[in-house]
Amino acid sequence: MYYIGVDLGGTNIAAGIVDDAGKIVKKASTKTGRNRKSEEIVKDMCRLVLDLMKDAGLTEKDIYSIGIGSPGSHDRENGIILYNNNLNFKNVNIKEAFQKHIDVPIYLENDANCAAIAENVAGAAKGYEHSVTITIGTGIGGGVIINNKLFTGTNGMGAELGHIVIDIDGEYCTCGRKGCWEAYSAAPGLISQTRKAAEKNPDSKIHELCGGNLDNIDAKTAFDAARLGDKTGMKVIDDYIGIFGEALANIINIFQPDVIVIGGGVSKEGDNLLIPLKEKMRGKTYGNEGLPTTLIVVAQMGNDAGIVGAAFIPKLN
Amino acid sequence: MYYIGVDLGGTNIAAGIVDDAGKIVKKASTKTGRNRKSEEIVKDMCRLVLDLMKDAGLTEKDIYSIGIGSPGSHDRENGIILYNNNLNFKNVNIKEAFQKHIDVPIYLENDANCAAIAENVAGAAKGYEHSVTITIGTGIGGGVIINNKLFTGTNGMGAELGHIVIDIDGEYCTCGRKGCWEAYSAAPGLISQTRKAAEKNPDSKIHELCGGNLDNIDAKTAFDAARLGDKTGMKVIDDYIGIFGEALANIINIFQPDVIVIGGGVSKEGDNLLIPLKEKMRGKTYGNEGLPTTLIVVAQMGNDAGIVGAAFIPKLN
Repeated sequence: MYYIGVDLGGTNIAAGIVDDAGKIVKKASTKTGRNRKSEEIVKDMCRLVLDLMKDAGLTEKDIYSIGIGSPGSHDRENGIILYNNNLNFKNVNIKEAFQKHIDVPIYLENDANCAAIAENVAGAAKGYEHSVTITIGTGIGGGVIINNKLFTGTNGMGAELGHIVIDIDGEYCTCGRKGCWEAYSAAPGLISQTRKAAEKNPDSKIHELCGGNLDNIDAKTAFDAARLGDKTGMKVIDDYIGIFGEALANIINIFQPDVIVIGGGVSKEGDNLLIPLKEKMRGKTYGNEGLPTTLIVVAQMGNDAGIVGAAFIPKLN
Repeated sequence: MYYIGVDLGGTNIAAGIVDDAGKIVKKASTKTGRNRKSEEIVKDMCRLVLDLMKDAGLTEKDIYSIGIGSPGSHDRENGIILYNNNLNFKNVNIKEAFQKHIDVPIYLENDANCAAIAENVAGAAKGYEHSVTITIGTGIGGGVIINNKLFTGTNGMGAELGHIVIDIDGEYCTCGRKGCWEAYSAAPGLISQTRKAAEKNPDSKIHELCGGNLDNIDAKTAFDAARLGDKTGMKVIDDYIGIFGEALANIINIFQPDVIVIGGGVSKEGDNLLIPLKEKMRGKTYGNEGLPTTLIVVAQMGNDAGIVGAAFIPKLN
């Protein structure tokens, strides 16, 4: 039996056929065309899946289930995307749309939770019963696995770990509060800190790295500057990692997981991030004077996390 | 069958025989004598339980289990209190001590978790699968119930909800970090805020309420002053409840429980606390513009929480 995962992103729809071990045996993708009507986008999702099955020589008897990962809020039980602000989806019944074409169980889950599932089943959290996967991008997504089950709270909206206020009256967050972790450690926060530091320090290498135009600063710029020994870049990264460490210490005090997996763009920094991060956390977790005992690692599933996580939704239900 | 619960506190040891519905059918207590050797204290705990059973005409055949609730850190599996800073307990094997006298299963659990169990089984969270119980005293204890099971993380040390940093570089916390929620909303934090406000405002009624001696300020003083219409007291309480609301909004964003139960001294304020607290949380929980959808209530179990919660540890294991 095979599992199919569909990763509905703002730019691409990716789908894959996944074997029981979490290996993608065949995958394909198509442009989302995010400004189109939801019906058209959903039709393309179905077509992508049906074409994949045909190419692989599989029928619905070979498919255990189809899982769809999507940002936004969902009615999991009825397979409805309630709201997805990237795609103008409102109350889109994706389960019904799929089941017109193929008679297998359809699952729907938040994309950050899919990333956590993928890391748990086949990636950096494999073999651990309790894991927290943090995906850093435009926002911060959290996915919490407890006893090998996805934890989402009583209404399915839990684990919004980016929206823990860590600095009352701090930076504004897109959610309407002030001082959420996301406002500091997601890409826009890091870009804003890099920009502010560059403005104050005209001799910083950040100016060269962005070709003299601060609008070109991205979430990598400060890391690149720090790598070149630029003091301004190093200070930005030191502060960034300091706040990151406080937030992860909070998460450990809350969940005491076996492992925290960090995914998204910043995770590509690997040990450049992890080593100072753990050092910043020394003595910060409750009752522990040393480095955190929870493992802190980077994600392993990369771009496949969305497909594999969506495919394996039923495994962690 | 009956359950026995023992609440090992810094001042008193309380024990009770609890029926299946969570009703205490017989209870007794004795002074802890916290400066004594742990062997003597444990001996008194055993004696208290054996006397209770004798008085109630019960033998070990009538007892399903004995549960012990205690602050500090525990090796639950082996029934060992690893560390309890109030009592100078270090590696005290309480299970072994009890089983010398009575052959029933012995359970050991953190006292904040016992409070959560008691509220879940017989109190304010009864009938809800997901609850978070916050006990406010000298510190802040958290107890999290997920799917009617106590959640404690992979190492049993999870749910230290008082040690979520909500104000980076804020007030010092006893845990060694700065800005933990506990530093603001536990009794010592409120007392310190009340004192500071009184020092700045010589005309505040706080001075009368503490008999002109600011050392007499307790966690109730600012509430009492606010009740009298004292502006300084009202400001202290408004700020206090503001921070409390931020912390609870964090907890909802993390756990999305059915209900949050607030216990400990401050919970006696009832609606004086709850009504403004919910109002402060308006629009603060993720994706919700109005008042929180999670119920926020005060604890119902009072002083019996320790006994009932300890007795029912196995029910939520």
